[in-house]
Amino acid sequence: MTLHFAPEAASFPVATRLDAYVAERSFDRPTLVMDLDRVAIQYHALKAGLGRADIHFAVKANPHRQVIARLVDLGSHFDAASKAEIALCLTEGAAPSEISFGNTIKRASDIAWAHDQGITLFAADAAEELEKIAVNAPGASVYIRLIVETSLADWPLSRKFGCDRDTALALLDYAKALGLNPVGFSFHVGSQTRQSAMWASSLDALALIWQAARDAGHELSLLNIGGGFPAFYGEAIEAPTAYASEVMKLVEARFPGAQKIMAEPGRGMVAEAGVIVAEVMLVSRKSARDLHRWVYLDIGRFSGLAETEGEAIRYQFHTARDGDPMGPCILAGPSCDSADVLYEKRPMQMPLTLQAGDRVLIRNTGAYTSTYSTLGFNGFPPLDVVVI
Amino acid sequence: MTLHFAPEAASFPVATRLDAYVAERSFDRPTLVMDLDRVAIQYHALKAGLGRADIHFAVKANPHRQVIARLVDLGSHFDAASKAEIALCLTEGAAPSEISFGNTIKRASDIAWAHDQGITLFAADAAEELEKIAVNAPGASVYIRLIVETSLADWPLSRKFGCDRDTALALLDYAKALGLNPVGFSFHVGSQTRQSAMWASSLDALALIWQAARDAGHELSLLNIGGGFPAFYGEAIEAPTAYASEVMKLVEARFPGAQKIMAEPGRGMVAEAGVIVAEVMLVSRKSARDLHRWVYLDIGRFSGLAETEGEAIRYQFHTARDGDPMGPCILAGPSCDSADVLYEKRPMQMPLTLQAGDRVLIRNTGAYTSTYSTLGFNGFPPLDVVVI
Repeated sequence: MTLHFAPEAASFPVATRLDAYVAERSFDRPTLVMDLDRVAIQYHALKAGLGRADIHFAVKANPHRQVIARLVDLGSHFDAASKAEIALCLTEGAAPSEISFGNTIKRASDIAWAHDQGITLFAADAAEELEKIAVNAPGASVYIRLIVETSLADWPLSRKFGCDRDTALALLDYAKALGLNPVGFSFHVGSQTRQSAMWASSLDALALIWQAARDAGHELSLLNIGGGFPAFYGEAIEAPTAYASEVMKLVEARFPGAQKIMAEPGRGMVAEAGVIVAEVMLVSRKSARDLHRWVYLDIGRFSGLAETEGEAIRYQFHTARDGDPMGPCILAGPSCDSADVLYEKRPMQMPLTLQAGDRVLIRNTGAYTSTYSTLGFNGFPPLDVVVI
Repeated sequence: MTLHFAPEAASFPVATRLDAYVAERSFDRPTLVMDLDRVAIQYHALKAGLGRADIHFAVKANPHRQVIARLVDLGSHFDAASKAEIALCLTEGAAPSEISFGNTIKRASDIAWAHDQGITLFAADAAEELEKIAVNAPGASVYIRLIVETSLADWPLSRKFGCDRDTALALLDYAKALGLNPVGFSFHVGSQTRQSAMWASSLDALALIWQAARDAGHELSLLNIGGGFPAFYGEAIEAPTAYASEVMKLVEARFPGAQKIMAEPGRGMVAEAGVIVAEVMLVSRKSARDLHRWVYLDIGRFSGLAETEGEAIRYQFHTARDGDPMGPCILAGPSCDSADVLYEKRPMQMPLTLQAGDRVLIRNTGAYTSTYSTLGFNGFPPLDVVVI
């Protein structure tokens, strides 16, 4: 098992393309710069480990048109959350057979539209959703999303998605009764599952349900192992090929009969291919009793860094002053919203010499940033995106 | 003291304009409908209570062009958080002298731009910000934002904004030394301060600092009492004129020398003038052991209802089935994000007969919804806005 502690600088020398690009340019607003070659390297690295599994890129992680187009060229398939995401993939050249409509919450008219476009694979976790699919995409293939124990992930998911074992088995029967084709199960191990070994207990639980379904006479053919593939945010993660390969070993040992395996990396595909260029707006200390400085950036929770909610992700910040003495600070966004604070409970180390106007690079921000950005909260423009 | 428990249906009969408008129309995506006449009624109601105080509408609450234009016509002044908000107000006809640049976190180049446009009043809470103002808007008037105790508000603000007493007094001196014109103080009593009596303790604390500044030789002329004016979200609030009048009585008793008083209602001006038209995507129960149904809407935390974070605001939901038996449900948004859950800790009562496709009206959503909406997270379109 190979651990890597830096954004793969050794194995991915083109990561420096981003640094070279931004070093030569000025930006008049916060900007995400995406390196498509870095996406390609990550695709190949994951594919090398995933082997026979199909990669369905989770479009929601970064739906930039050029990112999708590049992944189409690379041979990726796609997992779409909405009509708009399906339309995007089709426009960029993906075949309908390569796109799954993986949101368990779909508008009836969007199901009908997708069916008309040739989409044949849909997710569901409830009888009511199967009914909508049966009416609007008669005969479609469906997989049932299960809730499995996710407590080893950095951010376990809520109970919003998935159903329990007994419900899932009943839904397979119900799907058949509705004229649908129930092909298998999906689950999600949890976002940012940093070590492949963390998958074992979830896969164990899933295998029992899989076997119960087969015992009940369901010819399951599809196992969708979802996302959870990690990105480097400062804590050690396994390198992508080794990680994916270990996950597939765990899968193959438990699901020998699964003809088709899908994986849905999103964050693990694109996060490390992006860097945000931001700027310090103000550095201040507002009371002689304050323990820490406040550092305010021109980007915050409402303009791209939504995943700092609850201080869940600790991004890596770099400045030209990183050689100077460092000290803790509370990091906040530029809006007049008191909730627009990035890190306060665990202050961030930043150079003591930092001042307004300094450039700040925020590493590995290619996933779940640009589309989380608001339209213009407080009049601040949304995160700009440049693709190289 | 008059309490009102409904969105002023009796005193504001035109609130029914919204209902009449939406009843006659279909919407193909979540839509905020704003009633400008309702904004005008609220403006007059607040102005009647605020008397000699200038209303500076907090643009960030709803920066729709027509909302700003109507408020210009009504004689409102404006508090802007950014260059874009200032530009908007100027375009819609506000005079530069009627616009304050109230964000304590400003880009140096934006200060210079505002100065060129004729903006003369700026907020600050730190020496570093005063230095930026002195360089980029020489001679400008500044007010110092104070932190005061806000624990009586529904959502006390963080320490992100404002400085303490000693820092504030030092900043008045420093502003003078920098050639600026320090005219007074601002503070924020906290968002959604439902009862006027809750202002007393904050104003008491502020008055001591005001007096200390005068004792130190500062000729203060401006008191900016900020926002905090409430909207009706289901819990009793005072009617706007009575509320504003009581607040002004508390102010006048404590600040007899304040020549100019500013108030910055945002939520309290526009929230009740808007209704969101949404749709049920799915109603499901995913385990026989689940206590509650899940109800998924086509709008969530990332497409307009960001203020449900932490279940802070409990919006009022209405459907055509409200006469049917009601039961608790977990309410969630449509995205594939597990954090996109509106109410779970305190489930929401909704009709037991509710089903996919049903229309849901979300009342009093005219503030802090449209611009909080993301660009298109998960491919869902941002909240549409229609003005009537």
